[in-house]
Amino acid sequence: MTNKRIVVIGGTAAGPKAAARAKRLDQSAEVVLLQKAPELSMATCGYPYYVEGRFKEREKLLCTPTGVVRNVAFFAGAKGVEARVSTEVTEINPIAKTVTARNLATREEATFPYDKLILCTGSVPVAPAIPGRDLAGISGLNTLAEADALRAAAEEKAVKEAVVLGGGLIGVETAEALALAGIAVTLVERMPQILCSLDIEIAKLAEAHMRAKGVKLITDCSVAEFLGRDGRVCGVRLSDGREIAAGMAVMATGIAPNTALAKAAGLAIGETGGIAVDAHMRTSDPDIFAAGDCVEVVNRITGKKTLAPYGDLANLEGRVAADNAVLGPTTVFPGTIDSGICKVFDFAAGSTGLSEARARAAGYDVAVAVNASPDKPDFMGACLLVSKIVADAKTGRVLGFQCVGPGSVSRQVATAAAAITGGLTVDDMCMLDLPYAPPFSLAIDHVIASAHILQNKMRGLMKGVPATAVKAKLDAGESPFLLDVRAPDEYEQMRLGLGETLIPLGQLRRRLGELPEETNREIVVYCKISMRGYEAQRVLEAKGYRNVLVMEGGIMAWPFAREK
Amino acid sequence: MTNKRIVVIGGTAAGPKAAARAKRLDQSAEVVLLQKAPELSMATCGYPYYVEGRFKEREKLLCTPTGVVRNVAFFAGAKGVEARVSTEVTEINPIAKTVTARNLATREEATFPYDKLILCTGSVPVAPAIPGRDLAGISGLNTLAEADALRAAAEEKAVKEAVVLGGGLIGVETAEALALAGIAVTLVERMPQILCSLDIEIAKLAEAHMRAKGVKLITDCSVAEFLGRDGRVCGVRLSDGREIAAGMAVMATGIAPNTALAKAAGLAIGETGGIAVDAHMRTSDPDIFAAGDCVEVVNRITGKKTLAPYGDLANLEGRVAADNAVLGPTTVFPGTIDSGICKVFDFAAGSTGLSEARARAAGYDVAVAVNASPDKPDFMGACLLVSKIVADAKTGRVLGFQCVGPGSVSRQVATAAAAITGGLTVDDMCMLDLPYAPPFSLAIDHVIASAHILQNKMRGLMKGVPATAVKAKLDAGESPFLLDVRAPDEYEQMRLGLGETLIPLGQLRRRLGELPEETNREIVVYCKISMRGYEAQRVLEAKGYRNVLVMEGGIMAWPFAREK
Repeated sequence: MTNKRIVVIGGTAAGPKAAARAKRLDQSAEVVLLQKAPELSMATCGYPYYVEGRFKEREKLLCTPTGVVRNVAFFAGAKGVEARVSTEVTEINPIAKTVTARNLATREEATFPYDKLILCTGSVPVAPAIPGRDLAGISGLNTLAEADALRAAAEEKAVKEAVVLGGGLIGVETAEALALAGIAVTLVERMPQILCSLDIEIAKLAEAHMRAKGVKLITDCSVAEFLGRDGRVCGVRLSDGREIAAGMAVMATGIAPNTALAKAAGLAIGETGGIAVDAHMRTSDPDIFAAGDCVEVVNRITGKKTLAPYGDLANLEGRVAADNAVLGPTTVFPGTIDSGICKVFDFAAGSTGLSEARARAAGYDVAVAVNASPDKPDFMGACLLVSKIVADAKTGRVLGFQCVGPGSVSRQVATAAAAITGGLTVDDMCMLDLPYAPPFSLAIDHVIASAHILQNKMRGLMKGVPATAVKAKLDAGESPFLLDVRAPDEYEQMRLGLGETLIPLGQLRRRLGELPEETNREIVVYCKISMRGYEAQRVLEAKGYRNVLVMEGGIMAWPFAREK
Repeated sequence: MTNKRIVVIGGTAAGPKAAARAKRLDQSAEVVLLQKAPELSMATCGYPYYVEGRFKEREKLLCTPTGVVRNVAFFAGAKGVEARVSTEVTEINPIAKTVTARNLATREEATFPYDKLILCTGSVPVAPAIPGRDLAGISGLNTLAEADALRAAAEEKAVKEAVVLGGGLIGVETAEALALAGIAVTLVERMPQILCSLDIEIAKLAEAHMRAKGVKLITDCSVAEFLGRDGRVCGVRLSDGREIAAGMAVMATGIAPNTALAKAAGLAIGETGGIAVDAHMRTSDPDIFAAGDCVEVVNRITGKKTLAPYGDLANLEGRVAADNAVLGPTTVFPGTIDSGICKVFDFAAGSTGLSEARARAAGYDVAVAVNASPDKPDFMGACLLVSKIVADAKTGRVLGFQCVGPGSVSRQVATAAAAITGGLTVDDMCMLDLPYAPPFSLAIDHVIASAHILQNKMRGLMKGVPATAVKAKLDAGESPFLLDVRAPDEYEQMRLGLGETLIPLGQLRRRLGELPEETNREIVVYCKISMRGYEAQRVLEAKGYRNVLVMEGGIMAWPFAREK
């Protein structure tokens, strides 16, 4: 390890991590970091909060935890890395082992020889070819310059209405940011739901919260045309013909790996469109590594290649690429389980592993359960969370977990992510020994309760039906006997109003005469969160009813309109 | 499964869970729950928050998540369980398979035959025989009656000063509760530290926070005598002779399994003093099960028997006991990893698995690392956490994790608990795919960063030394070269003041001349949190210094007095 020349292309997340790590591993190495943007180490995931105005100081997006701006001088002094900003790489020559780059300010070109090259070229936005796309006032939220422009527009209060295209993580965060900045936001998503890593009945709860916070949310629809006035966007026409006024539009329609340089250099590209790398983050050229949004990685659950453009993984991959570039093949990146989370006003929505839809698409025979229950005792300020746990019906292995609500979603999903990584089964998860005290959780923590419900279902103790399936039954003209087992005062405050019968659980054993006589009749039973619903099912089954289903998560997981 | 008679003794946590679960599993069973206290299903872990006055309604300690009091009528109606309160079991006859109990109000005795018996007799306080123990104003915080009395005393403002004996979870929570209720609190702990599941350097950070919040904390000391006036406590005399005024004293000196009934019935008691049970929570009598604080369970890491009197485990064990009592041996309780957490004013202190001290005591060759780093980006309101991760040096398996600070301690410890349960190694934990977004974590989450530091240490990249060891070196007259690599303004705000030399990291490469000439000289380098300290170590080692140690966690993990 002496006087190795390491060139890193890309200075946002994976790149700076790889460069700094490489230098730490080999102080004698010459490490050069080439960055097209004028800034380095931008906290791109923080852009929505900057746009929102949660903080004013743009520099905070560029700082170390101790408040030092990560600029060229910082990289030179603190990291021993020669960083060049506003420097666009124009060519990689893998035979000569050189990189050619142009300074975007001076237009000067320079050539950098390398022993090892690490590509961290990130992603490019995917923007559908919508007429009017070039009007002023239409942008993405991919670059700091775009964040600056949106922040300025929000601050100037010049724009009253905005449209956000795309309901993925970035679209949702952007919609929230603009709404909190005082702009009336319409979010348009072409799929039937936002946040597609969530199953639809969970996503609908996040949608309902966004609507409650004033965002106009339109799913199953797309923008057909941007409408302009004097060269500036003034609205959109939707695919259903509706027109919506908007002085601003933000494209959050997705991203794709930025592989132009890699392709030009003849590197292998995977089927997903990302740069193909092995477990050491090595490309098809043994002296070139790649990390971050530009690569494809392995999904640890399915074993299939996938794109996982997350900031946290970019850092981990950059670290691995540096280890292997400097030390030889020493460190393995095991892949992703597709964990993600976003703040949605007072809610958070997070997921890890496979949703039911994705697990089925991957060929799994799945068992699932929905759990609506508080994250803490009422006396410590409980927040109601709604979760869904997905397991392999054959092996019991937990495949995925999703959670939405105002409470400790982040703790729940992180716990599940570690459990999935450890290969835990539903039975294992039922017995997790988690840190418990009333300020932090219930005695049976929400994520454990989710496993208990699923275990009960898998053992045949509980027979559940998701709210979406109940709604579908009713919409199809079926008439299950709907049994609400809450207390009368709860019924007065809130109810479905779909012809249900109210018998409080405490009275059920002596009011069985009010139930249908036919023991084959389908009975759908529920309460607020369906703990009492489950008790009721056990009672009714013991009385001979053979077709009793608990509506999972109860009224709190009912994502549709209610009578009250 | 027909008309089985199941008797459960104990109605706090494990007992109600076991009774309700048993009935759900077999609606034809007659389930009787016998409870000595007048209440059922008390949230005992919530008592400190009730004493503090965080909520006024005592009933909240007894309610379901939907606000229904869990009383005899509730258990009858909603659960189908016959609960008897104020009913003390006086004898178990395992031959006749009967339980005899006395109604504490009417003094009437009744005999309950059982097919299966589940013992959930909980714990009894362990109170050292201190002179003056019988004075008025001295109590524990074990029963709801005691909580009521402390709450009343706090509310009446009659007592200005209180002493809490014992710095375990309950002692710390009680001290916090009384302090927040406006009482001047002295906490006396006979060991050198509070919260003995934490290693001392981590516990000292919690102690410093308690002191900053006004609690007078005395470690390495015990109460020798309670001082009285007119039959009421007026102070304590400590083992070192000091006297402290106190109108109230709370004993939080520990608990022991309540095994009197079990012993009298001839059941096997384990070496730890808890009722011996197998993995099905079955005692030495095949028709008697036990769960909760009264049993001993397996530590999943060491494989040894241990006491784990935690409310969350009591619930899990009660569920397992019911499964096996009703269905036969179907469900295994795998044991504990000793996870715990408590709120300490604005901090939380949590741990899971083994501390370094406990791991060494259990015979492990351990590798450890301390990590001081924020839980979120600065622009989202970062909180600085200090963690310690403990691994098996041979296998790399993570054995334990501790975390103290004002931020997301609960998430960090829960994640680590799931990781430890999954048998993850340090390398595995380095690659965790956790849900990341700026409102919830850093791109490299704190728990992952802890693993990175430990991996760096285990690979020999970083050579760390805990703050406690640096202090011990200095106290022993050694004179390592202390190198602070922060910026001058940071140094002006806060510094150790122990003769350290300040050279900012960014200037280190060109100011090497200011370092000792002898490359064998021990250099202890640090910054605020020792990320820069680590960089500096790498620089110095490359320059030939062979004895450079990073003070782990930097100044933020220095639990002793500073110059400023």
